[in-house]
Amino acid sequence: MGLTLDQARAIVAGTLAAGGERGFNPLTVVVLDAGGHVTAVERQDGSSAKRFEIAHGKAHGAVAFGWGSRRTMGRAEDFAPFVTGAGTAIGPLVPVPGGVLVRDAEGTLLGAVGVSGDNSDNDEAAALAGIESAGLVGQPD
Amino acid sequence: MGLTLDQARAIVAGTLAAGGERGFNPLTVVVLDAGGHVTAVERQDGSSAKRFEIAHGKAHGAVAFGWGSRRTMGRAEDFAPFVTGAGTAIGPLVPVPGGVLVRDAEGTLLGAVGVSGDNSDNDEAAALAGIESAGLVGQPD
Amino acid sequence: MGLTLDQARAIVAGTLAAGGERGFNPLTVVVLDAGGHVTAVERQDGSSAKRFEIAHGKAHGAVAFGWGSRRTMGRAEDFAPFVTGAGTAIGPLVPVPGGVLVRDAEGTLLGAVGVSGDNSDNDEAAALAGIESAGLVGQPD
Amino acid sequence: MGLTLDQARAIVAGTLAAGGERGFNPLTVVVLDAGGHVTAVERQDGSSAKRFEIAHGKAHGAVAFGWGSRRTMGRAEDFAPFVTGAGTAIGPLVPVPGGVLVRDAEGTLLGAVGVSGDNSDNDEAAALAGIESAGLVGQPD
Repeated sequence: MGLTLDQARAIVAGTLAAGGERGFNPLTVVVLDAGGHVTAVERQDGSSAKRFEIAHGKAHGAVAFGWGSRRTMGRAEDFAPFVTGAGTAIGPLVPVPGGVLVRDAEGTLLGAVGVSGDNSDNDEAAALAGIESAGLVGQPD
Repeated sequence: MGLTLDQARAIVAGTLAAGGERGFNPLTVVVLDAGGHVTAVERQDGSSAKRFEIAHGKAHGAVAFGWGSRRTMGRAEDFAPFVTGAGTAIGPLVPVPGGVLVRDAEGTLLGAVGVSGDNSDNDEAAALAGIESAGLVGQPD
Repeated sequence: MGLTLDQARAIVAGTLAAGGERGFNPLTVVVLDAGGHVTAVERQDGSSAKRFEIAHGKAHGAVAFGWGSRRTMGRAEDFAPFVTGAGTAIGPLVPVPGGVLVRDAEGTLLGAVGVSGDNSDNDEAAALAGIESAGLVGQPD
Repeated sequence: MGLTLDQARAIVAGTLAAGGERGFNPLTVVVLDAGGHVTAVERQDGSSAKRFEIAHGKAHGAVAFGWGSRRTMGRAEDFAPFVTGAGTAIGPLVPVPGGVLVRDAEGTLLGAVGVSGDNSDNDEAAALAGIESAGLVGQPD
């Protein structure tokens, strides 16, 4: 399914390192493969109870639609019922930044990363840093 | 329930042909019978993971209400909680164009088509072209 | 995600051809990719209403566990609550033959096929014939 | 809720190391805190699609009941509807070994580990080895 566990670990480590360097709140990172299945997760001490579910919902929506969760936010800003309705069809779907598609250098989809814990822009920045640190390419929208 | 597999196949083929001629993104086409049950599906290479669920949600909502998903979008624009609440009652319900009822020349309901992959207007245009190519009549709203 | 639409179409056509040659009841065929996402479906005229859901449940369980649905039947024969419980975790799961993993000649997982309509042994035989007709390898247990 | 990310990482690493030493199939390890919330996950290459959900269902049931999933298997052997009914109440619940409670040396509950990928006895053995390697105490039943 494209993404290896070693790649997923590198993304998790790079995301948490970026959050630490920038002084972000405790983060939760969820890495999915191209089929949307959980491959690696770490939730930092001090995260709230359901940060896994929130980060997962960002990444899951990204794989489901084929774009980053920032674009889903845009759709919701234009027409909120799109997100309400899509949720009845595809399941977990959190329409704020922090769900980023992961591609290799050739553009092949490998999976997605979801991050939650700080504000959404910072969550996304940490995800992008983590993906880059693994030698891969992030698509946030 | 009215729609034959041969008719469903013709709709799928005509929809994908229309998408190809017009340069649309990869499409997923779901054909339901008049009872709302899946009869034929094709998802083109390059579609995102849950395009089946999205296209199904458009068609399922159309059969559930007895009108095309464009009308559901209008209802949501007037009163967004309609879609929220209806989703709790009827299940999958994606309130954007691309879910089109299928009728025969006499107006008898045969089923519905859901298309997803390009923007919603293009999804609907491909569905209508596919239905017409099968010698049937589409009702988009 | 491994399986192309052309491969999925070949599997569907080969499965229905096998059912026709052997005089089976009307069949429903569901083809999933390696991530468990619907790629192609055909439901023959005369199938009952929810044959899609049944065939999907066979194939979905196969992808979820990484083995064909015949093995899940064996697990259920040994300890029925395994299936009850697994269903709470993984979703649709029909524990009778007819859900067959699809691999290429090198053994790489491409997806799964679910067939329903005749008895389970015949459903599985049709799925295997369809997979073979597409030049691929089926794993029924 | 007791368990730190460092402890969860040690459990994951120890579980996968034990599986490697013993020649087990690829494993998926899920670590929950005492509130049942996901803290760390790793899914080894070659795991099937929904191994996260299966391993999670073992650990989630353990936290929900306050005993390891081996005891749930015993309850199911005595009275299968217990699992059926409990699943409607508590959610994911996989009633086979491999869901192990995690306690500190004083017996305080810290969380649970779920492992899936090999047979259930081996899954449980790997979980116990991982918990022990982290200097903690596992309760498998």
